Order: sequence, then structure tokens, then C-alpha cells
Amino acid sequence: MRMMGDMGGVVPAPAAPGAGQVLTTDLYEVSMCLGYLREGMTAEATFSLFVRELPPARGFLVAAGLEPALDYLSRLRVGPAEAAAFADVLHRPPADLDPMTGLEFRGAVRAVPEGRVVLAGEPLLEVTAPLPQAQLAESFLLNLVGHQTAVASKAARCVLAARGRPVVDFSLRRTHGAEAARQMARTGALTGFAGTSNVAAATELGIPAVGTMAHSWIEAFEDEEAAFRAFARAHPGPVAFLVDTYDTERGTAVAARVLRGLGYGPGCGIRLDSGDLAVLAGRCRRILDDAGLPEVRIIASGGLDEYAVDRLVRAGAPIDVYAVGTKAGVSADAPYLDSAYKLVSFAGRPVMKLSAAKVTAPAAKQVFRGPGCRDVIALRDEPVPPGTEPLLRTVMTGGRRTAAPDTLAAARERFQADLAALPEDARRIHDPVAPRPGRSAALIRLTEEVRSRIGARTGARGTSGDAGDAGERGDASGGARG
Amino acid sequence: MRMMGDMGGVVPAPAAPGAGQVLTTDLYEVSMCLGYLREGMTAEATFSLFVRELPPARGFLVAAGLEPALDYLSRLRVGPAEAAAFADVLHRPPADLDPMTGLEFRGAVRAVPEGRVVLAGEPLLEVTAPLPQAQLAESFLLNLVGHQTAVASKAARCVLAARGRPVVDFSLRRTHGAEAARQMARTGALTGFAGTSNVAAATELGIPAVGTMAHSWIEAFEDEEAAFRAFARAHPGPVAFLVDTYDTERGTAVAARVLRGLGYGPGCGIRLDSGDLAVLAGRCRRILDDAGLPEVRIIASGGLDEYAVDRLVRAGAPIDVYAVGTKAGVSADAPYLDSAYKLVSFAGRPVMKLSAAKVTAPAAKQVFRGPGCRDVIALRDEPVPPGTEPLLRTVMTGGRRTAAPDTLAAARERFQADLAALPEDARRIHDPVAPRPGRSAALIRLTEEVRSRIGARTGARGTSGDAGDAGERGDASGGARG
Repeated sequence: MRMMGDMGGVVPAPAAPGAGQVLTTDLYEVSMCLGYLREGMTAEATFSLFVRELPPARGFLVAAGLEPALDYLSRLRVGPAEAAAFADVLHRPPADLDPMTGLEFRGAVRAVPEGRVVLAGEPLLEVTAPLPQAQLAESFLLNLVGHQTAVASKAARCVLAARGRPVVDFSLRRTHGAEAARQMARTGALTGFAGTSNVAAATELGIPAVGTMAHSWIEAFEDEEAAFRAFARAHPGPVAFLVDTYDTERGTAVAARVLRGLGYGPGCGIRLDSGDLAVLAGRCRRILDDAGLPEVRIIASGGLDEYAVDRLVRAGAPIDVYAVGTKAGVSADAPYLDSAYKLVSFAGRPVMKLSAAKVTAPAAKQVFRGPGCRDVIALRDEPVPPGTEPLLRTVMTGGRRTAAPDTLAAARERFQADLAALPEDARRIHDPVAPRPGRSAALIRLTEEVRSRIGARTGARGTSGDAGDAGERGDASGGARG
Repeated sequence: MRMMGDMGGVVPAPAAPGAGQVLTTDLYEVSMCLGYLREGMTAEATFSLFVRELPPARGFLVAAGLEPALDYLSRLRVGPAEAAAFADVLHRPPADLDPMTGLEFRGAVRAVPEGRVVLAGEPLLEVTAPLPQAQLAESFLLNLVGHQTAVASKAARCVLAARGRPVVDFSLRRTHGAEAARQMARTGALTGFAGTSNVAAATELGIPAVGTMAHSWIEAFEDEEAAFRAFARAHPGPVAFLVDTYDTERGTAVAARVLRGLGYGPGCGIRLDSGDLAVLAGRCRRILDDAGLPEVRIIASGGLDEYAVDRLVRAGAPIDVYAVGTKAGVSADAPYLDSAYKLVSFAGRPVMKLSAAKVTAPAAKQVFRGPGCRDVIALRDEPVPPGTEPLLRTVMTGGRRTAAPDTLAAARERFQADLAALPEDARRIHDPVAPRPGRSAALIRLTEEVRSRIGARTGARGTSGDAGDAGERGDASGGARG
């Protein structure tokens, strides 16, 4: 374990996106990968990526991040430059890294497609590959799938709270970097958002870009009327005016006057960004209606998340479009998931961990879903029980996708179907109750067998039963198992 | 406001290297930028980027993200491809974007250098540029500076809690994308972390890479002893063994036996990743000491943040290195800051916003720091009061840096000096109290003048006094002002 070193040097520019994906890994993955190769331990291993326990404020998760994860794996290769970088961080001569040079990911992936509902302990994906390859990919797979599943699950709750009204993503300015903003825009689209303010994400993903104007636009003019008129001049066609820079109701009256003068109505809007949105929306609606502009929509923003949207919808606020930002983009009430990527079999032998409160279940798995998200976690090769559907599908073999990349539209359809099948108490905004998957008799039996075998060999204290039918109880503490 | 559109299409690969930084903006910035150009509103504007209120769990913030922000601004250019993308998201013919084609950032930036302590309402940076240029940069500047200041402030608290013991970053697997992981590694180094597990960040930033082994390494072998011996074979020299896979104390005894057999001591370690770390660290320390290995260090990980580190240090746990992960990397107790980028002057005229609870103060500013972080927010050109130091410096003019990029080492020195000057109650881990900056008489006077002028013109209700000496009170609600 190296602890000190030269920390000076010029701060370089941000990494070019797409470069150095192989280096995006923890040092210990490199140490282990090299170690396995040196020990000749290249037999097939299966790692299972799952979320131990859901955050208290989540009744379900939405699988996301698989497509980017497959992109990553299909390009994972240790070239000479990467091997040199690894040698450098390990303080080894370059030749020591020869066993890793040229290593590529050539394994198989079985996974739950994006957009599907998943629950505690259910594998989101399983990687089966020579041990060194499967190990090296751990850190970035966890990052890609864990984060995107977290924000997709948050976005899904915003959509639920809005009960059919359009929700749009305004989170770019506060996400944890531009990449996180893109991931939020993407998972928003996946769960049914109507658009994003993020131009890069909209362009790249082919989703609608949305937006109005900022307070600075208004302030740069002598008054609101001049500001609104100038905006309409610069952008012929339907416009949306921000009305709360000085006084929301007066601003709305000015907006109504300008819109009427322009002869605009349908497709136009006003945006409220501060104050008591329920009260103000009602007053502004009346102002617009009295001005003969019943088709002008009210867009609300400013600190909104599913809780605020739920409150506004329940209060009957006449808000037509909800723009959620920061709190959705960072999943503020659950900014991470208790995800894990665990070795479950190696060289044909099922494997599990017994350390306190972090017990894992052995062997490659499948999840069988019955009606109403009644799930059973089973061994991979068990027969499909009647009336159930297996969630994990083979999506990669030999390091190559088995089918063309999935589409956002397909993922969104899956999400909508799964959402409709979820029990009502899992869909609740406040105090949701997540369904708990059961375990097949074969999985329970194997878990006990492996536990006894390991216990006999290592003297471990793992107590029987606690990984039975209650899911893989973790400490949910957000620890990095670095 | 466009809301609907085609959302199908293949999910593309991550963005090409270096592409799309100009596109990383909100749609409304583009609309406004184009509108200003069409209206001929290219006079100089100043925008101030600040945090309205600190999160309750922060007694101070650490300025970070400036260097990446300057990199972004110095490359900000709308080329033909970007203009075409803007036309596309605006649903305009390409020629409509001609006024923006070729636009570059040519403005000036005054900023607080990275590593300095900053407080509520204090500008982290001010951009002075032709209005369209300064507007277009808003979204990404907020993202870069806001997020990195948030994680730097979290990292600083981890360093404080450890009271001189090394802290390292293990957050890669749970941050909001790989870019966020890199930002965490960087701000960790900036606040005094001893290293990061993130190979890409370590390589790129020249900071030490650190790591041990995962549970999977242990599980891939017949038993712990075989696993430890194999690791030592593969990695000659000091090693650190993970001891909690089956039973922490037995694992430590095995590790001690292997280390003794190898003749290793100094530079070696064991890692505890689960269970009651205070109790286990004490027991493991005794096992190591009894084995004649007093120099073998104990590394702790697993859900650690400044609160856990503080508890362990206070309990006297013999832990030598603290590895913080998820909760630090996502700043779990404050995953965003209430940041704002506000127009404060345009065409020589001071500007402010009066909307409910989001009042801003007008004009370009300076912060004068007295001993003990007694700060006064003042107008930019006020004379420096005796015994104080101005925090904002000119770092860019004409779109070019005024000096070579800053170094992490210099930023870390600034941070350590500022940290030492902070009042004790701001440095507390629990219930910290942030110093509140005062305001200069000239700033208070100007605020009142502008408020009266705007109120007279717009009929706004902004009440006198509430933006006086108590800072710019925002709703701290995390709203995206999209």
C-alpha cells in the first residue's frame, strides 16, 4: 500500500471523455488482475452486481446504465500505454506488467434490460469471464450501473408524482459533473421525462431540449415588458416567459399583455421559479384566463423533487409542466445505492463471503418475476416456474454484444409496463414499501452448503439462516469496498 | 418551450474526446445568447458566482473547480458544428444561428484561488464579458465550481476529523460518474488526502495511487493464508492484507503469520472493512503487536465519512489510515450547494433581483478577509481596509489566463493556512457554526439605491433590509434556476 508521493505538478485539463476508460479502475483491481495472471488463475469467474438493500425512500429501483456498461466492456483493452500507466502507479518496472498487456474483455454478460424494475438483492448484471478480466472491470461497472440506477429510480418517482403531467430535467448546473448531467438526462428520458434543458445531452441522445429564459434576461432590460418583447422578437413562435423576477403576479400580467399583443396562446407558457408555487400558480392561472389565454401553460421550477411535485399536484395547483433540477439530478435523498459486485463462483465452484453483516449468496443467478413484481431469486439454470418471466438475459458473449444496442424508447416501454405492475405501496411517494424477492429452495440449499463448507475450512463464524429468504442484508452504510 | 419530440433512436456511445464542452449548457443560455446578439446587447456584463447559504453541516466551504473552469472558458468557442447543433435544438434553420457562429469567450475573470476558505454570499468568481459570452457559460461554470467546492468542503472535514492521520479516497465505484470520481480525487488531494484508489485520477493528476485487495481475491483461493501468500508473491515488497472476509481476528492472525514469515513489517498493513471498527482495530492491534509487528499499520474502510472518522479517533481506535469512500465522494449529507450565477451589472448599471427569498446584491464585488476569517463583502473597487486581504484576484483577461495554471500543491498550502485561521466552531464536525461575512457600508448603500430604483420602475415588492448584513438569504432549496 503506497501512501505518499509527489503531489505537485501542473493541474491538467479535464480528461477527454472516452479516453482512459481502462484506467478508470481502482488500484487494487490492477494489483489483483496482475496477481491472478501471475498465479495462472485464469479460470472462469462469475461476479454478480446487485444492490444489497434499497434506500428507505425507494419502493423499487429502475435498472439503468447497462448500455454504457456494455460500451465500456466491449472496448476494455490494456494497451501498452495503459500497461505503462499501471506499472507507474504500482511502482514497478514496465516489464512487470507484461502479463496484462493486450488483455481484453472477452467474457459474457447476462443482465436485466434497462428500464425494468429491480429489487434488493437481485442481480442487475452478472459477468462471467476469466477471473482477471472480470475483476479489472469491477470499479467502473459499479460506478456506471449503480449511479444510473440511482438517478433513474429518482426520476421514476418524479414521473409518478406528476401523475401524467410532463416532467422535464433542469439539473445540469448542479449535478456532479457534466457526465452526471448527461446520465440524468438519459435516465429521465428512460423513465418518461418530456425533455431536458441540457443541450449536449439532448443533441447526443436525440431527446427534446427545453428551456425558457433566466432572470438575467429580464434584468438586462429596462423592464419586463421590454424583456418579453425582445425575447419574442429574437425567437419567433411560441415562447415562455419567466415572471417572478420582481413580482410574480405583476410579471404574469405583463406576460399576458405581451402574449395577447403577439396573438400567441397555444404552445406558450409562463414560468414560476420562487415563492409559494401552489398559491401563485392559482393566481397566475386566473390572470391568464381573465386575459383570454387559457391555453398558456404554467411551468414550475425551483427546488422541485417528487415530494414537492406530489404536494403541488395534491393541492390541485394548476401547473402544467414540472421542471425538476438539483434534487432529482443528485438524487438528494438517496445519493448512492448500496451496490456490490461480488464473486459468486470461480473455476466451477460457488463462492460466498461471510464477513459480519455483508454475507453474499453463492453462484450465478436468475430472477423469476411473477405478476405484481413477485420475484424469486434462483440459481441461473433452474427451470422457469410457470407464470413467471426470467429477468436476466444474455447480452454479451465473447466480449461482443449479442444484439444491437438497445433504444431509449424500448427501455421506456419496459419501464412503463413494469411500473404499471408494481404494487401501489411500492409506488407511493412517502414511505414506500418495496416488495421483497423470495429465494428458490435450490438457492437456499446451496447457500447453506457453501456456508458450511467455508465455515469448516476457515473457522468463520457466519451464522446460519441470516441470508435465507430476507435478501442479502448488507449494512447499507455506503461503504466503499475499495 | 418545446416539450415533445422523437425520443427513439440508438443509444450512442459516450461523447467523443474533448467534444461538446460548448454544448454543455442549458437551452435557455443559447436562446438568451442568441437573443442578446440579435438585440445588439453586447455591452459588458458582470456575473457573480456564489453560494447563497451553507448547508447546515458545513462551517466553511473550500473553493475548488476554478482551474477546470478556466480551462473551459479558455476553450469556449461556437464553431459551425456547435451552431448547427444549437439550430437543431432550437428548431431553427441553421442560418438563424449565424450571429453565434465564431463566438468565443474573450472576457475577464476575477476569482478566489482554489483551496481558500469561502463563506455564504461571497463570490467564488466573477465573470466580466460581453453579455452573450458571459451568459452562455453560466450552466457549466455553476456545475464545475459548485460541485467541486461541495466535495472539497466535504473532503476537508474528513481531513479535520482524522486529526493528522492519513485519509485516502476510495470513492470511484459510487460517485456520480467517472468525472465526479476524478473531481473527488482532485479535491481530496487539494485538501490533504494522502492518495486515491482511482488509477485514472492518480495518473492524470500525479497523486499517489493506493489500494490493497478485495474480498474476491481471498475467495478465489482455498483459504486466507494461500491468498495472502499469493498476493505477496505477485507483489514483492510491502503489502496490505484484507482480513475480514471470514473472521476479522482469525484473518489478522493469519496475516501476521504470513507477514512474519516474509520478514515484512514497515510499510505493510491490514485492512478492516466491516464490523465494529473501533473494537476490532483494538483487538487486531494487539494480535499484530503480540506477533512482533508493531509497525504493521491498520487501514479502516467501509462506510466511513467525517462523522465515523471522528467517532473512531475520539474512541482512541488504533487506526493508522482512514479510507473514505461513497459518503465523501457524493458528499452524502450535502450533495449540492445552493449556488447561483447572477447578473450584478450590465452596461455600467448595477443590477439585482427582487423575487421572493432570492434577492441578490448588485455590482461587482470583492471580499476582504481579516484575521480569523472575519470577512467583509464589498464593492470591487473599494480600497483594501488595513489588516485585511482581498480574496478575489484577476485570473483571466481577454479570454486568456493571466498566469500559468495553478498547482495542486499551491492550492493545498492555501487551504492549510486558511484552515488554521478558521474559528474552532467552524471546524467542528458536529453542528459547526459558519462565520458570517459582513457587508461594507458602500455595498449596503448601493443595494438600497438599486432596490429603490427597481422598485419604483417595476412595482416590485422587495422589502427593505432583508439583504442587509445577513448575507444573501436564498431558499437553500436546491432549485435549479433553469
